Amino acid sequence: MSEEFRIYLVKLLHDFKEDIKSEIRAMFQEMEDILKKEIKILRRNLEEIFEMKDSINQNKNSMESSTNRGDHLEDRTSGNEDKIYNFENKGDHTEKIINCVTFPHPVTMPEQQLLKPTEWSYCDYFWADKKDPQGNGAGAGFELLLQKQLKGKQMQKEMSEFIRERIKIEEEYAKNLTKLSQNSLAAQEEGSLGEAWAQVKKSLADEAEVHLKFSKLHSEVEKPLMNFRENFKKDMKKCDHHIADLRKQLASRCASVEKAQKALTERQRDLEVKTQQLEIKLSNKTEEDIKKARRKSTQAGDDLMRCVDLYNQAQSKWFEEMVTTTLELEWLEVERVEMIRQHLCQYTQLRHETDTFNQSTVEPVDQLLRKVDPAKDRELWVREHKTGTIRPVDMEI
Amino acid sequence: MSEEFRIYLVKLLHDFKEDIKSEIRAMFQEMEDILKKEIKILRRNLEEIFEMKDSINQNKNSMESSTNRGDHLEDRTSGNEDKIYNFENKGDHTEKIINCVTFPHPVTMPEQQLLKPTEWSYCDYFWADKKDPQGNGAGAGFELLLQKQLKGKQMQKEMSEFIRERIKIEEEYAKNLTKLSQNSLAAQEEGSLGEAWAQVKKSLADEAEVHLKFSKLHSEVEKPLMNFRENFKKDMKKCDHHIADLRKQLASRCASVEKAQKALTERQRDLEVKTQQLEIKLSNKTEEDIKKARRKSTQAGDDLMRCVDLYNQAQSKWFEEMVTTTLELEWLEVERVEMIRQHLCQYTQLRHETDTFNQSTVEPVDQLLRKVDPAKDRELWVREHKTGTIRPVDMEI
Repeated sequence: MSEEFRIYLVKLLHDFKEDIKSEIRAMFQEMEDILKKEIKILRRNLEEIFEMKDSINQNKNSMESSTNRGDHLEDRTSGNEDKIYNFENKGDHTEKIINCVTFPHPVTMPEQQLLKPTEWSYCDYFWADKKDPQGNGAGAGFELLLQKQLKGKQMQKEMSEFIRERIKIEEEYAKNLTKLSQNSLAAQEEGSLGEAWAQVKKSLADEAEVHLKFSKLHSEVEKPLMNFRENFKKDMKKCDHHIADLRKQLASRCASVEKAQKALTERQRDLEVKTQQLEIKLSNKTEEDIKKARRKSTQAGDDLMRCVDLYNQAQSKWFEEMVTTTLELEWLEVERVEMIRQHLCQYTQLRHETDTFNQSTVEPVDQLLRKVDPAKDRELWVREHKTGTIRPVDMEI
Repeated sequence: MSEEFRIYLVKLLHDFKEDIKSEIRAMFQEMEDILKKEIKILRRNLEEIFEMKDSINQNKNSMESSTNRGDHLEDRTSGNEDKIYNFENKGDHTEKIINCVTFPHPVTMPEQQLLKPTEWSYCDYFWADKKDPQGNGAGAGFELLLQKQLKGKQMQKEMSEFIRERIKIEEEYAKNLTKLSQNSLAAQEEGSLGEAWAQVKKSLADEAEVHLKFSKLHSEVEKPLMNFRENFKKDMKKCDHHIADLRKQLASRCASVEKAQKALTERQRDLEVKTQQLEIKLSNKTEEDIKKARRKSTQAGDDLMRCVDLYNQAQSKWFEEMVTTTLELEWLEVERVEMIRQHLCQYTQLRHETDTFNQSTVEPVDQLLRKVDPAKDRELWVREHKTGTIRPVDMEI
């Protein structure tokens, strides 16, 4: 009775576990659907933000252009002089260029809010270049993220290898159990004890089968871990090249700005010299020369502005790609962690099932052991081997 | 919530099993006590039966002796003649001697009840000698029982060997699990996922320990099966020799009976010849000769009776030893089957425990997998590796 109740409880437990499992799966599916929807919305929002940023930049640029280009030459020249003053001194109190990227000056820095303030998002934390232990620059901050991705991929691969090793151990174990279950030790034991013993051996074969089922691990854990994101490395390289190209473009435009600045400075100095010459009247054709020098200086100012515009456009493009790509990488990492988590859950799930099935392989042995009966076994044996029941009697004369 | 309930159910199941186990053990103990008592009573009864049988035999013998020896010589002579007639013809309708054992004649056989009618007891079924496949005699029936014992012993030894092989497989499995749990694959995985992964590896070491605990089999199953009854073979040999000696004694006394019978026949023929000589008066000293021949014939009759007495005593002794020893062997076999059954139960018990403990090694992995959180992991990693949060701004002139 109590044994039946135990079986009932085991069955109850098993059914209960199956229910819970399917419910959890359903819940998880629901959660996943919701999360995917949320992420889609977030991405759309992000795209809108970028579009807004683009249009703001364009407005600013066109405003600057129209303001600047609509003015008279003189105005532009004096305006240029102001700008040049600012430009020459900007290292001190407006902006700071580090590795061709323009950051706000630490002192006059405007209040910057994080793009995603509560999320420790990759897009907020890797704007500066990374430093080596000696504090020297050692590549873009973005490279850290790429390294993290590659390491993650490696970890995943190693987990898959670990699972493969585990499968091998299970297979070896199962092979040994099967082999032992097939040997002939005590095969001649008779009666109910013999039956129980045969079941002890058979249960080893059953156990072996259970442990072979555990190598579902191969299709359900090892392979998915290994095969996930096949183009991963290629994608990462593409990312790397894309961002690096944008940084190179930024560097070349930064160099153009510097060159234009130098040209302007030269022109400005030339204009200054010629104006001084006019004042002390060293030459008669000075008036004409000054006009020419002023025109050239204005031209150089325009050149510088165009270079700065192009630089800003390149930096803006890099900025956008940085935000988009880091968010992409962030999402890939979330996916990776989730994927590994799910497959490790699959692993523990299979382990639980193995234990449950394993337990069931012992049940028939227990049943036959309960039926072992020395009296019945003796009856069987005596029936087969008896020589004679007639007892001797005294010899009579 | 449902997970806690599952744990609760597992605990419930475990407690329940423990209850059942201790109850079964108590029940088994009670049963064993009762059985031991019953067996003691049975043995005492058996001893009483033997004592009774002894005294009956003694009574019979002394009755025969007093009847025979109290009579006159003449009476004895004529009595002897009757007996000799019976003796000479007994092969046909009173008894049948097979291999020196005297059985009742199949036709005139008295109703024999089995000594233990409901039990298929060894003591009832092995009185005749065993036959080989050609139907020829091939040793005493008792030898079959001894062979059964030796085979039982061998089976037990082989079961022990089987268990040893099983232990080896467990140890090999545990060794491999331990080795795998110590390898460094994916050891650099970080954060909550890294913790869960470390637990996956640690759980292998725990599993290994569980499987090593299963090698309690060594002390609880393998060794007891191997060491049980150390003097067994010696005891069996002693049994064998003892019964064989009694059969030899029986054979020699049977030969004495035959010899005495031949001597009596000769004396009787001599008396007959002398009586015929007296009738045809061939000799004068015949009267004296006949007296002498009659005395010698009576003497030979007495010799035969004494030989038959001795033969019956030897057969009686053999009979008693057969009953005692076969019952002993029967009890040894019951003990063997019970002992093996108990130790195989111990084996399944350990298997159940292994499965239960094994299941518990996965629990901490499940717990840590539930705690895996990509957002938290990202926070940890970003805190450690971030390069700078200040975003670039447009270059201004």
